[in-house]
Amino acid sequence: MSKYDQFTGFQVHSPDTWTTFHKNKFDVQPFGDHDVEIKIECCGVCSSDVHTISGGWGDQKFPLAVGHEIVGKAIRVGPKVTLVKEGERVGVGAQSWSCLECRQCKSDNETYCPKQMDTFGAVWPDTGIVNQGGYSSHVRTHEHWVFPIPEAIPSALAAPMMCAGITSYSPLVRNGAGPGKKVAIVGLGGLGHFGVLFSKALGAETWVISRSHSKEADAKAMGADGFLATQDKDWNKDHLMTFDLIVSTANSFGEGFDLAAYLALLDVHGKWVSVGLPEEANLTIKPQSFMSNGCLIGASHLGSRKEMLAMLKLAAEKGIKSWVETVPISAENLSTTVQRLHKNDVKYRFTMVDYDAAFGA
Amino acid sequence: MSKYDQFTGFQVHSPDTWTTFHKNKFDVQPFGDHDVEIKIECCGVCSSDVHTISGGWGDQKFPLAVGHEIVGKAIRVGPKVTLVKEGERVGVGAQSWSCLECRQCKSDNETYCPKQMDTFGAVWPDTGIVNQGGYSSHVRTHEHWVFPIPEAIPSALAAPMMCAGITSYSPLVRNGAGPGKKVAIVGLGGLGHFGVLFSKALGAETWVISRSHSKEADAKAMGADGFLATQDKDWNKDHLMTFDLIVSTANSFGEGFDLAAYLALLDVHGKWVSVGLPEEANLTIKPQSFMSNGCLIGASHLGSRKEMLAMLKLAAEKGIKSWVETVPISAENLSTTVQRLHKNDVKYRFTMVDYDAAFGA
Repeated sequence: MSKYDQFTGFQVHSPDTWTTFHKNKFDVQPFGDHDVEIKIECCGVCSSDVHTISGGWGDQKFPLAVGHEIVGKAIRVGPKVTLVKEGERVGVGAQSWSCLECRQCKSDNETYCPKQMDTFGAVWPDTGIVNQGGYSSHVRTHEHWVFPIPEAIPSALAAPMMCAGITSYSPLVRNGAGPGKKVAIVGLGGLGHFGVLFSKALGAETWVISRSHSKEADAKAMGADGFLATQDKDWNKDHLMTFDLIVSTANSFGEGFDLAAYLALLDVHGKWVSVGLPEEANLTIKPQSFMSNGCLIGASHLGSRKEMLAMLKLAAEKGIKSWVETVPISAENLSTTVQRLHKNDVKYRFTMVDYDAAFGA
Repeated sequence: MSKYDQFTGFQVHSPDTWTTFHKNKFDVQPFGDHDVEIKIECCGVCSSDVHTISGGWGDQKFPLAVGHEIVGKAIRVGPKVTLVKEGERVGVGAQSWSCLECRQCKSDNETYCPKQMDTFGAVWPDTGIVNQGGYSSHVRTHEHWVFPIPEAIPSALAAPMMCAGITSYSPLVRNGAGPGKKVAIVGLGGLGHFGVLFSKALGAETWVISRSHSKEADAKAMGADGFLATQDKDWNKDHLMTFDLIVSTANSFGEGFDLAAYLALLDVHGKWVSVGLPEEANLTIKPQSFMSNGCLIGASHLGSRKEMLAMLKLAAEKGIKSWVETVPISAENLSTTVQRLHKNDVKYRFTMVDYDAAFGA
């Protein structure tokens, strides 16, 4: 009998068996004054989940229940909680803690706090407990990382916004995507489809850049103004120095990836912002590639609480619909789902649902 | 007898003999309505000159007189010239032409015009004449790239501002260097010393990052607030996530160059802007290096006419003194000087002077 509270979740026991999920009980850190306890209703399936359980991102603490696109009901709030009400429908994303005291935290950059902790796999300092993600019955989270969900957005569509959505939204607003701007989204997957939806909602001319034309019809259905396939000869020729921003969701910079051809699309001081994190080690760049337009490349990591609330408001007001395939949560379905995601067999996000059937009402 | 006007200059005949200069006559493109003819008084010696004549930057047209940090007297102005008066002391930098009609040109980004031409080595479209630089008696340049020099700045100190100065100044002002900002200048050479002088003049807290401590006293004498030597153990530890901007003047990213250690110095969305262009092919980057602070890397190329005039005004008002060693121009002295520059034996810029002795008054 543990001295800690326990929740139940679907855990992977080791990267060697990353396609096998076990329904286990696990310890939860003590309930804090600023904590919110959430009975989970659904959870999106993120590439990070696959990278983590399969060991692609290095050592992790196992057994582990992943999942960080969580929507559920706040069933208990700590005595000092002011941001969330008991009974509210809320979401939790990929980050669950930061110091809230440093310069980064105080400037709405808490996702860059040096002391940040993720929603799963982080070791809780006082207890040594490893926090567990949203393939679970409940989650216990500091109120700063708990976000009320507007009524207009169904839970299964809100869930993937908690990570994929905010990851695409933040670099768009931080880099001025809006009317009069021309934005490219590289890669049409879970992140990329949100990139298109949000870039359009913000009013930017929005293009998709993909390897082939196979997703062109989907891109247009999401609202994209144009589509470029890098397999085409001279694919970038008609658009040199015309884009203000490229948000890259590519999670692979493999053989044949020609960064310079993308950078040549950027107008003066335009930016390439990467939000996909490849498992491969290195990206090779010729400094000369930056010279003809003074462009910049960089990365963006999630988004702030302020941006999360703004994104949800925009999504509610504009009626943005995530493209989601729902799957009832179970050990078997999780196995199938992570394998399908591993093969990129998804259009464009899975949300695990029917939590009551798996964990009780 | 050439059908074109001719000037005299010290030319290199081939990269194989890049340390040998020949005093030759050369053809000049026809005088245009917007052109200014300048009798050269002095010219700074830029690393680009060495890269160019030694073949480090690939094929060039020889014979060639390099030099693009020119100061002299406007002795003739075309009928449509409005920006320069006959008799004025003026400067010419590394760029001498762009279309002035494209989006880049119309937004003070003429240094990124796809049709830009350099001050030397560019082929003049109508005649096939290869333009020649400032190791010459005269230069003939479109008025847009001819800059009146404020009286307060001696010619030999103004000359290196035409390329090294503006190259360092532009990324500082374009990226907000000023009061309350913390700026690092990587490498204390010709460009770097202007980086320190201008960053301080703009009001930013300014640090120098160098391999060793050998230039620390000079950096402080230039006004630097601090100095970091990358050979020191844990050299970046006390400054993680504190810099807003790093301007890199390093012209080599060789063995042991650890970009990630520099990027870790940047605050959220801070920028590494490279103004040195290495001869080596590639820079290798882990995308992860950008994630912890959402930083960006990029490059900057020269600066606009508007910035050139603002820089000269600032230099005049603040009494900025370029650190210059003057050398009388001659075939022999040019040979010695480019070889010294090639070995980085310069503190911190050479200006070739005494043009009257070489070319006549």
